[in-house]
Amino acid sequence: MERAEKIIPIDMDVWQAASERWDSIAKPLGSFGVLEEMICRIAAVQGSPDVDISRRCAVVMCGDHGVVAEGVTQCGSDVTAECAAAIASGRSNINAVASAYGIDVMAVDVGMSSDADAAGLVRRKAVHGTRNMVYGPAMTREETAAAIKTGIDIAGELKSQGVDIIITGEMGIGNTTASSAIASVLLGLPPREVTGRGAGLSSEGLERKIAAVERAIEVNHPSADDPVGVLSAVGGAEIAGMTGLFLGGAYYHIPVIADGVISAAAAAIAYGIAPLSGEYMLASHCSGEPAGEGLLRYIGLRPVIDAGLRLGEGTGGALLIPLLDGAIALYRNSHRFDDTNIERYTEQK
Amino acid sequence: MERAEKIIPIDMDVWQAASERWDSIAKPLGSFGVLEEMICRIAAVQGSPDVDISRRCAVVMCGDHGVVAEGVTQCGSDVTAECAAAIASGRSNINAVASAYGIDVMAVDVGMSSDADAAGLVRRKAVHGTRNMVYGPAMTREETAAAIKTGIDIAGELKSQGVDIIITGEMGIGNTTASSAIASVLLGLPPREVTGRGAGLSSEGLERKIAAVERAIEVNHPSADDPVGVLSAVGGAEIAGMTGLFLGGAYYHIPVIADGVISAAAAAIAYGIAPLSGEYMLASHCSGEPAGEGLLRYIGLRPVIDAGLRLGEGTGGALLIPLLDGAIALYRNSHRFDDTNIERYTEQK
Repeated sequence: MERAEKIIPIDMDVWQAASERWDSIAKPLGSFGVLEEMICRIAAVQGSPDVDISRRCAVVMCGDHGVVAEGVTQCGSDVTAECAAAIASGRSNINAVASAYGIDVMAVDVGMSSDADAAGLVRRKAVHGTRNMVYGPAMTREETAAAIKTGIDIAGELKSQGVDIIITGEMGIGNTTASSAIASVLLGLPPREVTGRGAGLSSEGLERKIAAVERAIEVNHPSADDPVGVLSAVGGAEIAGMTGLFLGGAYYHIPVIADGVISAAAAAIAYGIAPLSGEYMLASHCSGEPAGEGLLRYIGLRPVIDAGLRLGEGTGGALLIPLLDGAIALYRNSHRFDDTNIERYTEQK
Repeated sequence: MERAEKIIPIDMDVWQAASERWDSIAKPLGSFGVLEEMICRIAAVQGSPDVDISRRCAVVMCGDHGVVAEGVTQCGSDVTAECAAAIASGRSNINAVASAYGIDVMAVDVGMSSDADAAGLVRRKAVHGTRNMVYGPAMTREETAAAIKTGIDIAGELKSQGVDIIITGEMGIGNTTASSAIASVLLGLPPREVTGRGAGLSSEGLERKIAAVERAIEVNHPSADDPVGVLSAVGGAEIAGMTGLFLGGAYYHIPVIADGVISAAAAAIAYGIAPLSGEYMLASHCSGEPAGEGLLRYIGLRPVIDAGLRLGEGTGGALLIPLLDGAIALYRNSHRFDDTNIERYTEQK
């Protein structure tokens, strides 16, 4: 965690320079809303008002969850392996969406229970699936730290490859259960308020899921004051891997995009470990899962897409990329007040 | 208005076929949310599950408003002409954003007060700027009908050129005042609740704007039962032109994207004239202006972007295009349950 402790604030002088560039465009001041702020943030992360997100990579962290034994999901852990292999070989949902936006996709086994080989899958296993959190911690602190380190390392490797922006994604049957548990602890809300149907659970399944989250919290009594402890008690390896991506993005000065509720849970843990890491994050969409909005608000992030997305794999995060592309095109190429006969709109008080 | 009366419902059999195609993709059912519905809608409009939005065009309707004399804006009508010329020549905000997504841009003078020539500007003037609605109707019924007809005609011309989807946009200093008046009448809400700062008005300016809307409604007493009457009393030529685009899109079977509050006001009038036209519309974003959300809800449209956008020119509507591109890539190219060992997720009740 040495690198997490060395995270510094983003460069607000660069933010200011980017903001002034926005204000020179012949349009009502601030009228491109949150997208203007996002471009300023990217500038402040990258250290230059000449923002560049042309090299973009979605990192899909894959892991399995012992809590699946409680009947909290529709399908078994074999589906994690199936989907991870599909993502690694370019056939899955994130690959299709990413291809529309020139996004590279990387699938990482950070904690799958399967050892089956899959072409293209990056092997960085910190654990062979988590233990069932209903009976004790999902992972040891060492396993948790190893998974976080993997995420930080990957951010560093992407930085050295010239990647400009990272999209976080995940694949892991059972991981909305872990995310609900994390949300319940961090937000101080009862499990019932932050637990949803995930991929499409029945009402009886939802009750089992809520009961499992309640029991896991009762047994492990995790505390929001110890975010790594929360991850090890009720989290998961792929969630810890994403936490590492957020911390690594901050350490290596790469903006990192949060996807849905699982990614938001990982981001909230990263924020807990190193609050300054929040300055390097961008929210994409507000998940259809009940915990999504609260977790983003916990970090102070505002999503710009609200479309009831709950697919995962980083697909929602990928959708932010073309909105940023459009905002950058506007920021770079539109006409300026100085080139026109239009006076600056400065009346607002 | 003969064509408006001939609008038929969209093809729900095609919607069903598109929906089944979504359900064949190896992902949680319905997990791409509103974007899945939007692709089904486009299919049902175009008459084929093989949706195609590769030829996309933003039509920016330009017009002026007599109510500007009441001090309801920061700048004068000369700015409409400046900006229309910039859009027509490819230098403005919408051109920059559109270039990121391969969108053609067309600027139409449907009611500007200026007669100055501008390269590339399409001249279809229905009125030389509207009259001040505080003292009587902004336009005659004939002028209003002519502006609507222009929009319907342009939709037909774009159809014959092979355009697959239309984005509505506008430029017209004073047109958030007209839109607030329309919203007040259609939604039955007091002007104060549906009037905002537009491009960035001061608090005193906002009070003048609310007073102007109140006075215009008092003088003209428009009725929601007569949507063309509302347009002529308190609307504008570019709003009527956009109403024509929505009606024409429905008549010629082209999906039409609403942009912000002004476009939503035009869409709501089209919906009032021919309720079936609503089936051909897609909402992009929820405007930062207070009337935006209510107008979209009036039609039954759900926006997917919420970023506090209030730029206009069709820039917010343009942002929906890449989200649809990503959804179509997923719809076309992702792996199917039949190609995998994954069982369909069908538990949800």
